[in-house]
Amino acid sequence: MGKMEERKERLKNQIHFIVEIDKVKDIFRQTYLANGKRKENDAEHSWHLALMAVLLQEYAAEKVDVCKVMTMVLLHDLVEIDAGDTYAYDAEGAKDKREREVRAADRIFGLLPEDQGESFRALWEEFEGYETPEAKFAHVLDNFQPLLLNAASNGRSWKEHEVRKSQIYKRNERIPMCAPEIWEIMQEIVEEYIRKGNVIDDLS
Amino acid sequence: MGKMEERKERLKNQIHFIVEIDKVKDIFRQTYLANGKRKENDAEHSWHLALMAVLLQEYAAEKVDVCKVMTMVLLHDLVEIDAGDTYAYDAEGAKDKREREVRAADRIFGLLPEDQGESFRALWEEFEGYETPEAKFAHVLDNFQPLLLNAASNGRSWKEHEVRKSQIYKRNERIPMCAPEIWEIMQEIVEEYIRKGNVIDDLS
Repeated sequence: MGKMEERKERLKNQIHFIVEIDKVKDIFRQTYLANGKRKENDAEHSWHLALMAVLLQEYAAEKVDVCKVMTMVLLHDLVEIDAGDTYAYDAEGAKDKREREVRAADRIFGLLPEDQGESFRALWEEFEGYETPEAKFAHVLDNFQPLLLNAASNGRSWKEHEVRKSQIYKRNERIPMCAPEIWEIMQEIVEEYIRKGNVIDDLS
Repeated sequence: MGKMEERKERLKNQIHFIVEIDKVKDIFRQTYLANGKRKENDAEHSWHLALMAVLLQEYAAEKVDVCKVMTMVLLHDLVEIDAGDTYAYDAEGAKDKREREVRAADRIFGLLPEDQGESFRALWEEFEGYETPEAKFAHVLDNFQPLLLNAASNGRSWKEHEVRKSQIYKRNERIPMCAPEIWEIMQEIVEEYIRKGNVIDDLS
């Protein structure tokens, strides 16, 4: 292949990936939109996290490369195109989640030109690893955003799933270290929805 | 107010903004998803553009700060929460679009702490200005993405709106200068959908 043909082949592979990931707009989560009318999908969720990354970076306990955080959250749910959404409090689904998602990552990131596929795959693994400042902050956003939407939609999703305070605290156990001021607000919201009867207090 | 109270007030304003912009998930565009099942909304569209910014930056005629492009495309449609979506080929709606959008920008970006509100407002104005390398590339993405989705969904949106080749070329007149390789692919797609009878050829 000539240089020009190689360039064109590269762009075609990128386009193939771009059209393929459109499917994430049809992967629905358990969180309702703020207006409570319907559940949100992974593309909408990821969009929200990326803007939150810009706005809330000042609360990260360790300084983050916000550009990296944005890319990480924009792609963190792409594996769900094949693996589906596993609800935060679904113990059964959690069992083979990793296996399903690794297979999905192989296929989906494999559509990209090698350099970009490797870079996206590495960012997804970094998110999953929960070790770097960027991965920790991405998890803060990923946990904080549905809590805000649950509160805005009057706790409907918590009520439907009979969510207990201990489950929320377990899921968010690392948030106090990663973003203490955000954790403070999260606790206040949980207490409010315990008072309102949407979250079950099994810890007091 | 003490320093701690000021910090908390700031975070509360940021949260107010974050919940307010959830409304953009209910602003629907004229573009169908790739699977053709429903139209896409502004949050999904913006998510798509931000990932495309990362993947396609190599095609920008002028070197871009991709982090800035990402933030720009993530927020570029927020004004539509108040102003609504104005379809690309809606001549009537275009007349007072700017006026409606400026009022929306005043209100929406005004919800943020002053420094962040000014920075978001400036990025939106920069996008609208279409002058900087980042704004030009953001427009490339903003025009290329619906074209890819229109093609994937078999040209349905073009057919429904009886779109003419001259309209597409007029709308994209600056794309050849901003990203020539992407413009080449765009032209090929338009020609394909002229052959298929979805786009009206009024130029030959």
